[in-house]
Amino acid sequence: MIETPYLLFLGDAPDQLAAKVAQGIKDWRPEFAKGQLRLDGCRADMGLPDMTLAEAKAAGVRTLVIGVANRGGVISQSWKKVLVQALEEGFDLASGLHNLLRDEEDLAAVARATGRRLHDVRVPAVKYPIANGIRRTGKRCLAIGTDCSVGKMYTALCMEREMRERGMKASFRATGQTGILITGDGVPLDAVIADFMAGSIEWLTPDNDPDHWDLIEGQGSLFHISYSGVTLALIHGGQPDALILCHEPTRPHMRGLPDYRLPTLEAVRDTGLAMAKVANPACVVVGVSVNTQALSEEDAQIYLAEVEDRLGLPATDPYRFGAGKLVDALENL
Amino acid sequence: MIETPYLLFLGDAPDQLAAKVAQGIKDWRPEFAKGQLRLDGCRADMGLPDMTLAEAKAAGVRTLVIGVANRGGVISQSWKKVLVQALEEGFDLASGLHNLLRDEEDLAAVARATGRRLHDVRVPAVKYPIANGIRRTGKRCLAIGTDCSVGKMYTALCMEREMRERGMKASFRATGQTGILITGDGVPLDAVIADFMAGSIEWLTPDNDPDHWDLIEGQGSLFHISYSGVTLALIHGGQPDALILCHEPTRPHMRGLPDYRLPTLEAVRDTGLAMAKVANPACVVVGVSVNTQALSEEDAQIYLAEVEDRLGLPATDPYRFGAGKLVDALENL
Repeated sequence: MIETPYLLFLGDAPDQLAAKVAQGIKDWRPEFAKGQLRLDGCRADMGLPDMTLAEAKAAGVRTLVIGVANRGGVISQSWKKVLVQALEEGFDLASGLHNLLRDEEDLAAVARATGRRLHDVRVPAVKYPIANGIRRTGKRCLAIGTDCSVGKMYTALCMEREMRERGMKASFRATGQTGILITGDGVPLDAVIADFMAGSIEWLTPDNDPDHWDLIEGQGSLFHISYSGVTLALIHGGQPDALILCHEPTRPHMRGLPDYRLPTLEAVRDTGLAMAKVANPACVVVGVSVNTQALSEEDAQIYLAEVEDRLGLPATDPYRFGAGKLVDALENL
Repeated sequence: MIETPYLLFLGDAPDQLAAKVAQGIKDWRPEFAKGQLRLDGCRADMGLPDMTLAEAKAAGVRTLVIGVANRGGVISQSWKKVLVQALEEGFDLASGLHNLLRDEEDLAAVARATGRRLHDVRVPAVKYPIANGIRRTGKRCLAIGTDCSVGKMYTALCMEREMRERGMKASFRATGQTGILITGDGVPLDAVIADFMAGSIEWLTPDNDPDHWDLIEGQGSLFHISYSGVTLALIHGGQPDALILCHEPTRPHMRGLPDYRLPTLEAVRDTGLAMAKVANPACVVVGVSVNTQALSEEDAQIYLAEVEDRLGLPATDPYRFGAGKLVDALENL
């Protein structure tokens, strides 16, 4: 677990998009985001107080989170200076970068000397078990998609917020790097060894109160040939009680696969539900989450109405129009 | 790739079953199995010439293969002595043991000093790509099962033998430790990082002659919640033209999962084919392979006839009654 609260390191981000990890933390765990640290030339701004390391220390910050992608996969000297200083001043570091903090000799040496921790969230920190399939107490909801990157993480986070506002017990369960940095905990599923994938999700979503919902971050798609195995491990390890179907209606082909068309929502519903029932025969599909960011508001509403009519399920864009319909569906189970 | 031919190390195997890796090599690649090396108290016998290391050297052996499971997960001192001597006399070592040869300091040191190789086939030796889904030339057949350990490897090996006897171009493609030791090459799929599973199978079954068949070793089951992700990665990475359904009819529940019943052959057929068509719309299910070892010959024949009638597909136990029907089905495609 990554200790909170955070100082968000934006480095020399060329634009707001490069700092999407920081944006995610600020949007979804504002209570963790005490401030931001920007270097010369930084063009991203989270609207948080700019803090020096000393100011962050005084504000109770425990961890400096790298909230920005690095250019060319290199941790530059201008970053290094700040990271080393942060370790020396008593902060842990957390990163989802492809190149690992622990592989940087200077950072590793300073961390050892100061007793600070380097959290590389791309690498599993736990020895996960093989899945045993035993039914767990509490309830679980999983978002499954027609494709990768159609809004599964945002769907789960929007639902968690809505559920907490209603006083329901709900926990977003991160399965990807961004989600882990947002919440401080989770499983980097795409980096787990094949035999332990489903077991890692059982580990992530243990027994809980009967009225508690885990909102498990989905990954990939049963219909995305590069990552489908990860998706099926999520379905079988998560043993969901409820599935949400996720879709982005303007995508011309499967992400990264120009020759592969997207499946229909019906195909994802039928295959996903059949597979989920292997682990939990009581599983049901409760709703559809559509990422409508490429549509006008009017077109989005028309599309959602059409989906509701066709599938007989509540449909919304939870980020744009709220997750109320999806949470209603869970409450009505 | 592991260099052949082999000397099969049977160690102090308490019985024949403990030496099943050696048995597999002897059964399926007899041309690789020049001899066996047994220690005092060994109760396994492959019916091969007993050889000293010097005799094996003279016979042209390149690699000493550990063909036996070790007791208690420890490489004993009596084994060590032979393994060190083998390295010193110029043999490579190959092992599928859970504890790795490379983690034994003495073996690693001698291997470095002598320039010999330690093949731990449980660990991927290749940096696999992410699957790209591009159609490859040549044909591929994959065995998918109702459960783990129902005879998928033997099915593929029996078919390969029958096809080669008919003069067809066929290659068994190993995806597990035993298969890799048998053939000297392959992908230890259960040890591959999640993101690269399907890509490793694309790598294993590259472009080939239009009339060449890869017979891909199946793993797990879409209906086995611990390993289903591995199975789906095989289906999508392998982009099979033909599927064989594998089953063991006397099993009371899914292997290792007392609360999970086996799916029907029909369920495996329908779900497996639907998933395979994502990667290869022309895929068909061509036959059923039944592991009948727990049945009398008469009961086996009755069961196979019933399956043929019910599914409208050729059914055989390829190890007991030959793989002819399954190979006929491939030839008739």
